[in-house]
Amino acid sequence: MVGAKRYHNLHPFHKLLHDGKLSKAQVQAWALNRFYYQAMIPRKDAALISNMADRELRRAWRHRYLEHDGYGDDEGGIERWLRLTDALELPRDYVLSASGILPGTRFAVEAYLHFVREKSVLEGIASSLTELFAGNIHAERIEGMLAHYDFIEESMMAYFRRRLSQAPRDVDFALNYVKTNALTRQEQQAVVDALVFKTQVLWAQLDALHFAYVEPGLIPPGAFRP
Amino acid sequence: MVGAKRYHNLHPFHKLLHDGKLSKAQVQAWALNRFYYQAMIPRKDAALISNMADRELRRAWRHRYLEHDGYGDDEGGIERWLRLTDALELPRDYVLSASGILPGTRFAVEAYLHFVREKSVLEGIASSLTELFAGNIHAERIEGMLAHYDFIEESMMAYFRRRLSQAPRDVDFALNYVKTNALTRQEQQAVVDALVFKTQVLWAQLDALHFAYVEPGLIPPGAFRP
Repeated sequence: MVGAKRYHNLHPFHKLLHDGKLSKAQVQAWALNRFYYQAMIPRKDAALISNMADRELRRAWRHRYLEHDGYGDDEGGIERWLRLTDALELPRDYVLSASGILPGTRFAVEAYLHFVREKSVLEGIASSLTELFAGNIHAERIEGMLAHYDFIEESMMAYFRRRLSQAPRDVDFALNYVKTNALTRQEQQAVVDALVFKTQVLWAQLDALHFAYVEPGLIPPGAFRP
Repeated sequence: MVGAKRYHNLHPFHKLLHDGKLSKAQVQAWALNRFYYQAMIPRKDAALISNMADRELRRAWRHRYLEHDGYGDDEGGIERWLRLTDALELPRDYVLSASGILPGTRFAVEAYLHFVREKSVLEGIASSLTELFAGNIHAERIEGMLAHYDFIEESMMAYFRRRLSQAPRDVDFALNYVKTNALTRQEQQAVVDALVFKTQVLWAQLDALHFAYVEPGLIPPGAFRP
C-alpha cells in the first residue's frame, strides 16, 4: 500500500520531531517551511475547483478552501498555523514572505499546485488522499510535541486538533469520488500515481529540512538560520 | 476609451435582442450560449483565487465565486440563469451539457479561463473590469426584453436584477486594486490589454450568435437548431 510504504510519518525527521529530539530552532525551521505548504492549500483547492465543470462537485469541495482561508467565525487553518509560528517567536511578516524557506520546500509545494492545476479532476482529488493517513500523524504529533517540548503548548496545536475532525470527513468524500469515478484500469493507475506523487511532495519537504537542519546540516544560502 | 468603442452593447446582436427584434428561437440560442459563459465565471474566479498568494486578496475576491455557485440562502447566479433557460423551455440537461453551444462560444469562453489562469493576478483582475460598462446593459436588457417579448417575464430577469447591485460593488474593488497595483507604464498597458481582451471575449460570442442565427444564419453542425 502507498501509505504504509511512502507516507512521511516514516521519515526520520518526523520521528525526531515527535520524539522531542529537535531543538527549538529545528522546530522553528519545520514550522516555517511547513507554513508554505499550508498557505498553498487554499490555492491548490481553488485550482481544483477551477477545473471542475460540475457545480455540485465545486460546491461539495469548496469548504476545504473556506476552512483554510477562514470564513465567518472560523479564523481558518492558515491563521491557526500562524498561531504556532507566532508562539515559536517567528516574525509573522517573515513567515508570510516565505523568504526564508528552503528551495526544496518551495519546489515541492509548487509542484503540488502545478499538478492539481494541470492534471484531471480525478487526479487532483486523488492527490488529497494522503489524508487517509493523516489522522494518526496528527494525533501522534499533538501528543508527542506536547509531551516532549517545553516551548510547545496546547494552544499551538490548534491546527492539528481541528484537522483531527476535518480530515476524516474530507477523506471520505474524496475516497468515495475516486471509487465512483476511477473505473478503467488506466484511471485507477492514475489515482495511485497521484497518491504516490503527493507522498513525494510531503517526503521531499522533510528531506529538505533534514538535510539543511539535521544532517549534514548544510543550510542553503538565504534560508532561515537559527 | 475601451468601453466606449469595444463593449458588446455596441454589437448589432445586442440591439436586436434589446429592441425585441429576435424570435423566441433566437433568444433561446442567446440564452443557451450565454449560459456557457455564466457557468465558466465561478471557474474563472477560482482560477484567479488560485493565483493569489495574498490571503486577504483571496478573501476579498471569493464572494464572486460564492455568488455564482450559490451559498447559504442565495441560490447563486448560475441557478438564476437556469431559471431563464427553463422558462425559455430549453431542457436543463441540454443546457448544462453545453452540447448545443456554438464552437465560437466555447472557444471565446475557454479563452477567458485560460487567460485568467495563465496571466498575472493584476491582468486577471483587470479582465473583470468590463463590469464598469455592465450596469447600463443590464438595465437596458431588463427593460427592453420585458417590453418587447411576450415570452419574457420579470422572474426570468432575476440574474440581471441581482447583477445591478452586485456589479458596482465588484467593479469598485477591482478598479481600486488596479489603480493601486498598476504603477509602471508596462503594468498599465497590461491592464488595458486585459480589458481589450475581455471585450473581445464578449464580442466574439455575439459574432458567433449573429453569424449562426441572424445573418447569414449558417448554423454549424451539432449546434442548437430551433
